[in-house]
Amino acid sequence: MKRSLGAKSVVYPAPVFVIGTYDREGRANAATVAWGGICCSQPPCINISLRKATYTYANIMEHRAFTVNIPSERYVKEVDYLGIYSGKNIDKFSETGLTPKRGTMVDAPYIEEFPFVLECSLAQTIELGLHTLFIGEIRDIKADESFITEENIIDVEKVRPIIYAPEIRMYFGIGRFLGRSFSMGKKQP
Amino acid sequence: MKRSLGAKSVVYPAPVFVIGTYDREGRANAATVAWGGICCSQPPCINISLRKATYTYANIMEHRAFTVNIPSERYVKEVDYLGIYSGKNIDKFSETGLTPKRGTMVDAPYIEEFPFVLECSLAQTIELGLHTLFIGEIRDIKADESFITEENIIDVEKVRPIIYAPEIRMYFGIGRFLGRSFSMGKKQP
Repeated sequence: MKRSLGAKSVVYPAPVFVIGTYDREGRANAATVAWGGICCSQPPCINISLRKATYTYANIMEHRAFTVNIPSERYVKEVDYLGIYSGKNIDKFSETGLTPKRGTMVDAPYIEEFPFVLECSLAQTIELGLHTLFIGEIRDIKADESFITEENIIDVEKVRPIIYAPEIRMYFGIGRFLGRSFSMGKKQP
Repeated sequence: MKRSLGAKSVVYPAPVFVIGTYDREGRANAATVAWGGICCSQPPCINISLRKATYTYANIMEHRAFTVNIPSERYVKEVDYLGIYSGKNIDKFSETGLTPKRGTMVDAPYIEEFPFVLECSLAQTIELGLHTLFIGEIRDIKADESFITEENIIDVEKVRPIIYAPEIRMYFGIGRFLGRSFSMGKKQP
C-alpha cells in the first residue's frame, strides 16, 4: 500500500557528473551536477540541467561546449566542493588541486585526474522552469588507460563512480555485482 | 594520460527505471529503461528516452502519461526481463507476477511491489535521432510506508536501487555510504 508524498524531484540512483567549461576570459571551471544522463544512442547525446544563475550556464552559452567528467569515489570531497561553490569568485581548480586539460574535440576543459570524460558540443537548450535542459552531442570519450579493459570498454568496477541520493543528500559507492543485462532475465522470472 | 575511445553513449552510473503505461486497449505494460533522470526541480520534471519502435513509445503518445517505477535489487531478474521483451505480444505483468495498480494522478499504471513511483504527465517530446526524449511533469510520488523515514523522505538504503553500467552491461547494488552532500566539501579539500 503506497502513500502519496506530493510532487517532487526524487529518483534513485542519480549520477554525479562534473561539468567542465571555459568562461568568457578562457578560465577553466568545474561544477558538480546530479541532474543528467545519456538521452540518445545515435547520435550519442547526453543531457544535463542547470539553473540560469550558475556560472556554468553562462559558460556553455558562450562556448557552446562542455565536458562531462566521471569522478571516482576517492574524489568525493572535491566533488562536493565543486558543487557548493561558484567559479565566479574562485579558481576551483587551484583550490582543489585538480588539473584542467584542454579538450581536443570541443572548446572546454576536462579533469585530468578523473577516470573518464565525455567531450560534448551543445546541440539544444530547452527551458523547463527553474532548470534549463542542455543536450550535448558526445564528440569523444577519453579514458585513462588504467580503466580500459582489453575489449576497449571502460571498467566500471575500477572507475568506482559515485551514486547520489537527492533529497536525503547522500553519496554512495557502487555495490555488489547483481548480474548481466539482456541475459539474466531471458527466462521468465 | 587519457586515450580517445570515440563518440559513444557511456556514463556511470546509469539508473534503472521501469516505465508503466497503458496501451490503446487499456492493457498495462512495463518496460525497463536506463536513459533518464530528473531534469528540473520546479516544476519537478523527469526525462526518459525511448526508440520509436517500442510499445511504450506508442502508449505514452496515446495516453500522454507514464509512471517511473524505482525497483529494488531483489527484482533485478524481473527488471531485466521487462527490458528484453516487448509488451506487444505478451502480458509482462502476468509473466513476472508483478501487480499493476491504476495511478491516481495520471492515466498510467504503477507497480505495486516496487518501493516507489513517480506519476508523470507528458509535457514535451524532443526528437534526437534513434531516441526521442520524453519530458514528464511529476504529478505525485507514491512510496511504500516501509521505505519512508520519519522526516517523510524515501530511505535510499532501504530501497536498495539498482545501478546500471551501460556498454559493459552489468547491474550493481548500492555500495557504502561516502558522505553527505553540501556538507563534506564545505572546507577546501
